[in-house]
Amino acid sequence: MHAVAASQRDLPVAVFDSGVGGLTVLHECLVSLPHEDFLYLGDTGRFPYGTRSPDELRRFAGELAEILLAEGAKLIVVACNSATAAALPELRERLAGRVPVVAVVAPEARLAAATTRNGRVGLLATPATVASGAYDRALADASGGRAALHPVATAELAPLIQAGGEIDERTVAAVERACEPLLGAGVDTVILGCTHYPLVRPAIQRCLGRGVEIVTSGQAIVDEIERELDAAGSAAPSGRRGDYRFLATGDVDEFRRLGTRFLQLPIATVGHVPVAAPTEVAA
Amino acid sequence: MHAVAASQRDLPVAVFDSGVGGLTVLHECLVSLPHEDFLYLGDTGRFPYGTRSPDELRRFAGELAEILLAEGAKLIVVACNSATAAALPELRERLAGRVPVVAVVAPEARLAAATTRNGRVGLLATPATVASGAYDRALADASGGRAALHPVATAELAPLIQAGGEIDERTVAAVERACEPLLGAGVDTVILGCTHYPLVRPAIQRCLGRGVEIVTSGQAIVDEIERELDAAGSAAPSGRRGDYRFLATGDVDEFRRLGTRFLQLPIATVGHVPVAAPTEVAA
Repeated sequence: MHAVAASQRDLPVAVFDSGVGGLTVLHECLVSLPHEDFLYLGDTGRFPYGTRSPDELRRFAGELAEILLAEGAKLIVVACNSATAAALPELRERLAGRVPVVAVVAPEARLAAATTRNGRVGLLATPATVASGAYDRALADASGGRAALHPVATAELAPLIQAGGEIDERTVAAVERACEPLLGAGVDTVILGCTHYPLVRPAIQRCLGRGVEIVTSGQAIVDEIERELDAAGSAAPSGRRGDYRFLATGDVDEFRRLGTRFLQLPIATVGHVPVAAPTEVAA
Repeated sequence: MHAVAASQRDLPVAVFDSGVGGLTVLHECLVSLPHEDFLYLGDTGRFPYGTRSPDELRRFAGELAEILLAEGAKLIVVACNSATAAALPELRERLAGRVPVVAVVAPEARLAAATTRNGRVGLLATPATVASGAYDRALADASGGRAALHPVATAELAPLIQAGGEIDERTVAAVERACEPLLGAGVDTVILGCTHYPLVRPAIQRCLGRGVEIVTSGQAIVDEIERELDAAGSAAPSGRRGDYRFLATGDVDEFRRLGTRFLQLPIATVGHVPVAAPTEVAA
């Protein structure tokens, strides 16, 4: 830890995602690190990322990171599974020596490996995330091969949550279908591998039962952010009251309307930031 | 523990409150005790209880308990501060030998006493609850006088939550005003002494900081329910999937509309149950 100017400690931690899902990660950050400032960027203008090519996602991630650096980010959080899977190594390389990068997947795997007692860890995620095998590799790394991943792909849950207002019977039925194989496998820990899922966490916990520990990206990432900021000596002083603000590449009113449900805290103003259309981004 | 017919283990745990606030208690029950059946009765036709006389509340509590016993309740939970303060001893006497009664206040005090390390416990509650002194006495009992209560009365928070959809800046400002004296007193544990407050728990936790433990009625009551059911040998078998249903003395559509936000799980149908108008109830 080297000396850092006071002003750097007051800079914001930046979080980006393809849309509003990453706001559940920001939620945990705001609740657990209230002394830090945060800046959230939702690339809603190019949402969803699930159907984009890895090459496109690498370009998007680089472009968003430069916007966040220009806004003074002292650390960048990739709160998006698709962007993490496609772009993390390249993004870390691009930003090396400038700011640390924290992303989903590895932190949840580490927390799950530390949590499980019977070595059986469940994963609830979208088909694309399950197919990527990212959590399998991360859990194998984190546990030294001692924990086995039991992944369940559910295509229906994220769209139901994105569309929905209050939780309904259809969503609970989808949760029950998703949890059934995990109960069968006898898992004692379940990773919510999609940032939308914390919104239905009570239904998931009720279905899994009290004996199963749930691990979310937000929870896991908070610890990583703290560690990185401490290592860089750029953590904000613990006494202060932090602030948070928002940027979106798409419609800002839509962002605020949808986002408050995901954040569970007020969203005051949302700034608009232009990005290149997918085909216009320079390689 | 004596032999209990299998059918009794399958009977519901009943929860009553003056309105929808107690649904945050039911929420914790459904998440933590998914194998039990629950029946919730909201006396919405005579809401709010805050302005009723103790004598009225004793009559209401007796009347509601008889309705719930007729519905087969194996345990009754009083999820209402006003009813607990006014009617608990008489209700316990009335139901002695029939079903156990679990109520708010004492369980939270016991959990807070077990949680605090520095002996300074905060309370956020309505002016009526703070004025009753019920939590002061309960905490003194639970801690053997070792923990001191720092109560904060807030008149504005429950109405803001009852009215509100998504959390806004005004609600956060009310939370901050309420938490300020608790931060000043250096509490390390805070009891949410009103069943509405868990809906703004993220804002409260962000304001208090991660080092302060929050204790809710729901959390605390779940443990008491388990203990009582185990003592009576009437706990449901842990493998089964429990059910839950609702009764209201007022408008059932209004109950469902407001209630889903408090329960965070679906409310299918709500049955109507008539009760005497306040002035008609026999003493």
